[in-house]
Amino acid sequence: MTEAILEKTKGRVSYHDSVEEMLIRIRDDGLSSVFSRFDEQEKIRCKFCLQGLSCQLCTNGPCRINEQKGPEKGACGIGPDAMAMRNLLMRNIMGAATYAHHAYEAFRTLKETGKGNTTFQITDVDKLKWMCEKTGIDTNQNVNQMATCLAELLDREMKLNPDHESVMVEAFAPKKRKKIWRDLNIYPSGIEHEVQNSIASCLTNVDGDYVSLAKKALRLGLSTIYTAQIGLEMTQDILFGTPKPHEVDVDLGIMDPDYVNIAFNGHQPWIGAAALQLAKTEEFQELARQSGAKGIHIVGSIETGQELLQRFEVDDVFIGLMGNWLAIEPFLATGTVDAFVMEENCSPPAIDQYAEKYQVALVSVSTIIGVPGTEHEMPYYPQKAAEMAEKCIHVAIENFKKRHNKIKPMVPHHKQKAIAGFSTEAVLNAVGNDLNALVDVIAKGQIKGIVALANCSTLRNGPQDWNTVNLTKELIKKDILVVAGGCGNHGLEVAGMCNLDAINQAGEGLKGVCSALKIPPVLSFGTCTDTGRVSMLVTALADHLDVDISDLPIAVTAPEWMEQKATIDGVFAVAYGAYTHLSPTPFITGAPKLVKLLTEDVESLTGGKIALGDDPEQVANDIESHIMKKRQKMGL
Amino acid sequence: MTEAILEKTKGRVSYHDSVEEMLIRIRDDGLSSVFSRFDEQEKIRCKFCLQGLSCQLCTNGPCRINEQKGPEKGACGIGPDAMAMRNLLMRNIMGAATYAHHAYEAFRTLKETGKGNTTFQITDVDKLKWMCEKTGIDTNQNVNQMATCLAELLDREMKLNPDHESVMVEAFAPKKRKKIWRDLNIYPSGIEHEVQNSIASCLTNVDGDYVSLAKKALRLGLSTIYTAQIGLEMTQDILFGTPKPHEVDVDLGIMDPDYVNIAFNGHQPWIGAAALQLAKTEEFQELARQSGAKGIHIVGSIETGQELLQRFEVDDVFIGLMGNWLAIEPFLATGTVDAFVMEENCSPPAIDQYAEKYQVALVSVSTIIGVPGTEHEMPYYPQKAAEMAEKCIHVAIENFKKRHNKIKPMVPHHKQKAIAGFSTEAVLNAVGNDLNALVDVIAKGQIKGIVALANCSTLRNGPQDWNTVNLTKELIKKDILVVAGGCGNHGLEVAGMCNLDAINQAGEGLKGVCSALKIPPVLSFGTCTDTGRVSMLVTALADHLDVDISDLPIAVTAPEWMEQKATIDGVFAVAYGAYTHLSPTPFITGAPKLVKLLTEDVESLTGGKIALGDDPEQVANDIESHIMKKRQKMGL
Repeated sequence: MTEAILEKTKGRVSYHDSVEEMLIRIRDDGLSSVFSRFDEQEKIRCKFCLQGLSCQLCTNGPCRINEQKGPEKGACGIGPDAMAMRNLLMRNIMGAATYAHHAYEAFRTLKETGKGNTTFQITDVDKLKWMCEKTGIDTNQNVNQMATCLAELLDREMKLNPDHESVMVEAFAPKKRKKIWRDLNIYPSGIEHEVQNSIASCLTNVDGDYVSLAKKALRLGLSTIYTAQIGLEMTQDILFGTPKPHEVDVDLGIMDPDYVNIAFNGHQPWIGAAALQLAKTEEFQELARQSGAKGIHIVGSIETGQELLQRFEVDDVFIGLMGNWLAIEPFLATGTVDAFVMEENCSPPAIDQYAEKYQVALVSVSTIIGVPGTEHEMPYYPQKAAEMAEKCIHVAIENFKKRHNKIKPMVPHHKQKAIAGFSTEAVLNAVGNDLNALVDVIAKGQIKGIVALANCSTLRNGPQDWNTVNLTKELIKKDILVVAGGCGNHGLEVAGMCNLDAINQAGEGLKGVCSALKIPPVLSFGTCTDTGRVSMLVTALADHLDVDISDLPIAVTAPEWMEQKATIDGVFAVAYGAYTHLSPTPFITGAPKLVKLLTEDVESLTGGKIALGDDPEQVANDIESHIMKKRQKMGL
Repeated sequence: MTEAILEKTKGRVSYHDSVEEMLIRIRDDGLSSVFSRFDEQEKIRCKFCLQGLSCQLCTNGPCRINEQKGPEKGACGIGPDAMAMRNLLMRNIMGAATYAHHAYEAFRTLKETGKGNTTFQITDVDKLKWMCEKTGIDTNQNVNQMATCLAELLDREMKLNPDHESVMVEAFAPKKRKKIWRDLNIYPSGIEHEVQNSIASCLTNVDGDYVSLAKKALRLGLSTIYTAQIGLEMTQDILFGTPKPHEVDVDLGIMDPDYVNIAFNGHQPWIGAAALQLAKTEEFQELARQSGAKGIHIVGSIETGQELLQRFEVDDVFIGLMGNWLAIEPFLATGTVDAFVMEENCSPPAIDQYAEKYQVALVSVSTIIGVPGTEHEMPYYPQKAAEMAEKCIHVAIENFKKRHNKIKPMVPHHKQKAIAGFSTEAVLNAVGNDLNALVDVIAKGQIKGIVALANCSTLRNGPQDWNTVNLTKELIKKDILVVAGGCGNHGLEVAGMCNLDAINQAGEGLKGVCSALKIPPVLSFGTCTDTGRVSMLVTALADHLDVDISDLPIAVTAPEWMEQKATIDGVFAVAYGAYTHLSPTPFITGAPKLVKLLTEDVESLTGGKIALGDDPEQVANDIESHIMKKRQKMGL
């Protein structure tokens, strides 16, 4: 275990040529980027912060701990393990609450749609019925009534306290896990309650016990997935359709400067989906043409882009996905973007310089966004989605007039194919709706195991997406199927790992399965918000086999986690019973007991644990060993 | 403005002799304390943290900013002002969520009491009716039904989102403020929503605009007071009685080693109140006597103690208040405490060494507590309050057998009288239930103005309570009435500022008023949770005069704020329209635009602002100037 920052390899800062090319323009134009600012920060990293041994909560601080040389405790008396775990729990809380925010917007959108107050429809009626059946809602009512009831139930679930049982946890948790969670006192209540309880625990002089804090993190992780994330993803399926695999275009080469280009960025698809509806009408295309453009292009940016990509065909209006969050500044620097519409992370705070230099209108469609330079701010109300989308288009058209023929475009000639849109349903469909077929190829060893990769993209352990792509290559070589979500998934799509050509990079067993089923060896399962969706597939497998999650030949990896939502996904995975690889190493290395708890001792409690390591080859070997151990235990 | 740490004055670390005496024992016994650990930390403070220019949120960090020498931004691109404000908002959120946790426990206690499921009763029926009238609840139902309805309404209020209007804000906000808050877009919804919205805003790459973040803090502050704090304090009045002034005993000299001593520590009075009921029965006193004790003593510790002190007479069972949070370790070192029962902050994390050395049983009666060495953990359920209280008594009696005659007691001979239990009702009562009488003495200048002091206790700007006591002395000398809440209030009680003798330290005008009304020049208004209660008095005055809060000759001070709840109280005060003095200086000094916003520009928006300063004389002069300016503007 080390907190050392790996040297960048091969003189590159990104795996992707498109990003590398754009960074030359950015540098020449005198702008800073995450890449250049990262380098500056490298020079003055704080060792205490890296180790988790710095606290700024109260005025008796700021405090720092150094167990060797002293002080051994903060002024309040907190020790290194509790300080580091409290810091980590605060980050977990931030992630959990942000998912809860997304869920809140989803459930109110579903509710207003059920009431007929939005521009959206109930697209997947089967899924709505299925959700109602799972949660005990009467299905003998019309679709809109069901939608309203479901929305209200899901909203109530987030607000549950320990005085009431959660319907969602009961409905979606793996059968064999429930008793374990109850015995450990980590069976969760609603996310809003768990967030509040966890924050109050992190206050100065409340919870100074690293084990107690760690258990709160585990409970919060479970609460996040079961009372927020799964419900919100199912809600998005109900509204916009359950993802189905289809071919899409990705990378910066999708951009055409002669169109009015509107990018939707963040994680929440509402306004993007509404704008796509409008942009497909002749009325708005004509409006764009009148301003001298060839038409309107809707561009998927990071996770919002992936939410759209999963559910909508790429065509002459929706042109695909630009990449992941580290590609945002390069994307804006192409000089082709007219409106950059933001509703969640990652909406980086220094893109005002790009907006100015390359004539981009920054638009916020959420109360949480606060990006300097944002000209247009619209709080989200589901009832106003169409109106908001229309305004985005008008803003973009106006911007086109100022941008086109004035800002010199620079579009890298890189465009990649990917198959996006996997889901539990899609995987089942691929195996003829028979889980035994999947069990069979695993039992035979054609697929040794499955790794869920849910991830961001960071510069901390190498160039952008370097670790993600290289680890994935190693895994599929070993006949391990990769199911991917998050910015890491977009990195894999751009790197060409999510198309049928990638089958050639897989080991013989996996190659055979993928060729037969016509699926890539890396299944694009969507966004980081789809962590819950991925878990549904694994839960289905475990329940089908009547085994516990921790018995399955599976693992989780986040080879380039960056922000706080990733931390709560990771903590969930540990509570869920999964071997969970994290790179970079979280800021806990100054806390030896905590490290032991999270990387060793917790396995005897939940069956899951955190595994560390920044070298993709080594990590792949470690994951393979774990999977082989589980196979052996299952008698495979 | 400076982030420099003031030298301690006069070779002392506490204003209180009792604490100074106990620290000798603590040192001789080889234990560390907040006082000794603070000294160790003084040697290695991080300048970046002190200035608010350190961020550890994501793996592209940790980052630091130095505007002079660079880097000027974090890796993500966040600038110094947004970084410092985001750090501050995260602390605000922690405070808000902890108040929300307290409110959650209050409302479920009221609800279960209404249903007849607890050991508590509806004590103040008039207040219950008044609250029902204020919030539109039918008063033509029986007391228990009213209580249940009110509890449900208050719980709903915490969960409101912007799709609905808050009944509590509408009912309790000053008349002239509402439009200002709406115009600024800081009119709050429920605290759980605002907490979630604020946290999601603080995520990496979401809100990087210091003004946007500051506005979220203001809204969160208002939400905290109106949808959590006022409701919870009124609930506690309904359950345990509205505070009335009465004489009480304070300081460590209240302890008698020959009794079974049970201290209730934190902020929430449930189990303390339940235990007091039981301890007053002959059955339990006899049980204690059978173990060789003279009986049972219930001891108020910090805010929980003050909640009890406000409402219950000090007698031969309830013996008074030990002091504030910095006196906890000295208190435990007296060797007289049998059970230390904790439910919220401040429950310091290194008291396990005291528990071991001086034979104290550490007990938790809340899910948020996690103090190492805690032997007995009971999650709070209102229905179980009596059972939990009984268990606390048994634990204490068992501990007495191990402690008495084995641990040498050391009780400082300091015991002070204070008049506790002021409330809006009590103040109105003191002026013959006629606000005009209060207005009259202010108009005549006998009282120049009123300062609300809500506060912790910290070592950062001098010895414990030094700043609080000295500032208060200066203020009353200038004929400024002080209304106090929080650990600062306990410091003032122990320092003898809350009794009738203190009248002699007041200026001539205030002396006359206090003598006539037989009230001290410092009115003990309870805990930090009573910030809302204090605001109710000020609101009543403003509404009575039909002026805005920012027109009144009042100010707020937190001369020794320590933790995160204090930060949200302070932010509330600014949104409320008050001149708000804070010492120590918050960790924002590296953010020049933010400092200007909070200490200057915000005044043109809310009428309130933050004032800084660590010198009690100077601060008192500044406050007096502010008050005189407001008097002049009112034509007084």
